[in-house]
Amino acid sequence: MTDLKNRILNFVKDDLENIEKALTDNLNPFVDIITSVANHIMFSGGKRIRPLLTVLCAKICGYHGEIDKTISTIFEYMHTASLMHDDLVDEATLRRGKPVTQAVWNNATAVLIGDFLLARTLSIALAYEKRELIEIIAQITESMTQGEILQLINKGNLNLTEKDYMATIEKKTAILIQGACKTGAMIADATEHQEKALTEYGYHLGLAFQMADDLLDYTSETSDLGKKIGADLREGKLTLPVIYSLQKARGSKKNNDVKTMEDIIRKRDEFSDDEFGVFKNMLKTYGGIDYTRTLAEDQVKKAKCALDIFDASEDKSILMDLADYTLLRKT
Amino acid sequence: MTDLKNRILNFVKDDLENIEKALTDNLNPFVDIITSVANHIMFSGGKRIRPLLTVLCAKICGYHGEIDKTISTIFEYMHTASLMHDDLVDEATLRRGKPVTQAVWNNATAVLIGDFLLARTLSIALAYEKRELIEIIAQITESMTQGEILQLINKGNLNLTEKDYMATIEKKTAILIQGACKTGAMIADATEHQEKALTEYGYHLGLAFQMADDLLDYTSETSDLGKKIGADLREGKLTLPVIYSLQKARGSKKNNDVKTMEDIIRKRDEFSDDEFGVFKNMLKTYGGIDYTRTLAEDQVKKAKCALDIFDASEDKSILMDLADYTLLRKT
Repeated sequence: MTDLKNRILNFVKDDLENIEKALTDNLNPFVDIITSVANHIMFSGGKRIRPLLTVLCAKICGYHGEIDKTISTIFEYMHTASLMHDDLVDEATLRRGKPVTQAVWNNATAVLIGDFLLARTLSIALAYEKRELIEIIAQITESMTQGEILQLINKGNLNLTEKDYMATIEKKTAILIQGACKTGAMIADATEHQEKALTEYGYHLGLAFQMADDLLDYTSETSDLGKKIGADLREGKLTLPVIYSLQKARGSKKNNDVKTMEDIIRKRDEFSDDEFGVFKNMLKTYGGIDYTRTLAEDQVKKAKCALDIFDASEDKSILMDLADYTLLRKT
Repeated sequence: MTDLKNRILNFVKDDLENIEKALTDNLNPFVDIITSVANHIMFSGGKRIRPLLTVLCAKICGYHGEIDKTISTIFEYMHTASLMHDDLVDEATLRRGKPVTQAVWNNATAVLIGDFLLARTLSIALAYEKRELIEIIAQITESMTQGEILQLINKGNLNLTEKDYMATIEKKTAILIQGACKTGAMIADATEHQEKALTEYGYHLGLAFQMADDLLDYTSETSDLGKKIGADLREGKLTLPVIYSLQKARGSKKNNDVKTMEDIIRKRDEFSDDEFGVFKNMLKTYGGIDYTRTLAEDQVKKAKCALDIFDASEDKSILMDLADYTLLRKT
């Protein structure tokens, strides 16, 4: 794990530095508070996976220019904006180990700086003369919002299905990561074949990424995660490990277990640490953790397969590593 | 006043009906809650000034097609999105005589349905093959957010200047109305000259519109206004009538009056009806109301002058009437 992470970080070191610089340069903060808020959330240990994917996907298609760094910021700004609005929607308290924006400032700031970042993405995209990029942004913003709305209206819904879950994570996460990859291909004037492959890579990577993220809520320690343990469950956000385990428990007719799980889910933010321990055990017993991991692994495989059309290269192996890393990360 | 309003309404009746239809048709609500929330705020007596301006500006440039109605929805959706986020930022309670979105649903809904409406505008714009429209949308979203942020950080700032005020209302209101008018010209493939004239018309109309709106907070009755009386003052939002009067009071060295006004401003939501009465009298005494009205009238004149290049026509006289109506409306 550490080896893989080091190999990736070593290879992308310069790209990451350039992306950091572009994120600062393109923010265009006309008042100080924007820099403060952006520093708080955006420069607090985000992994820059999305802009990095744009840069790497451009590179694997033979791109050698400079515009990729600027364009790549679009996907980090969009991601950050969605985190800010998302934390507000979820009434979260911690993000990356720090208090969320609305806790440090207020709801108003979280709403407006999020709006500002979204507006920036459109302006940055316009400086680049490709209609396709605007189409990608439109698709992502509409899709992410739909995903967030679906998630909101399904909070606490004990009858959520795997299909509902997949539709939600596709919209809220996969379409953005897919867009970041597709844009890389577009910047490089890649062949249709290449663009299609990277679009597919991004889509499956995005699904894997979200599933892995949802697993972390039940497998990680707070100190690693940088947010409240069991946050999803506290918010009534039922993810695949829960959906699958509930369904299996119902199928097994062990009504006591079903009741135990449902009762804890209904408690929202009120369950005890012991109850959370019981709940996690249920997820193991009924296979929700393993099932989700298997599905995520399957998505990683699909992502890697999509890269088959590219010859072996250092760029390709880093994209493969990134896919593998999805399932290994602890934060 | 009633005559003017009736003349306008009579002339634009069909356009308004078509705009209403387009607003429903283009919403694309993939879940029911979007329709409910949109119905609550968007179909509750909004005057459709912005889409109407797009349609009328297209018409005065000789446009006879159908796409104007669809495109015009962009400006109502943007406006609605900004109202939803704005009410959240201001912690407002009433809008158009009804409880605001977050009071009926919650903060999350207000954030996300607002985001959804903004995302819709981009998708609608993309269906229309003009880069210029995307540029207008980018400019508006960036500008509106900047205006809202300026307004937020200046809340309760007793040293706000007229220049600060003008910069804020330009960004938060005028650029959107300007964009609605410019888009009308663009749809009609107007001459550069015509587009410039309508852009100018929209800009001045937008400024007049916001100034008139800010006046209403101190000159209207709740029953007319549909929101809490003195809402701006309660939120610490210092508008031109206040800025000007404070400045004049300071210049007159009547320190007691300055103190009275500043004390009431600092009370935010805690001032009594009597205190609000005192405050309104101060605005009259120091000329803030008259000064703002004069400046608004000046903007209306400029808006109407911008139409000079157009020959006399019914379309032109309605655009003139609309400018006059800005200062006469009571809600």
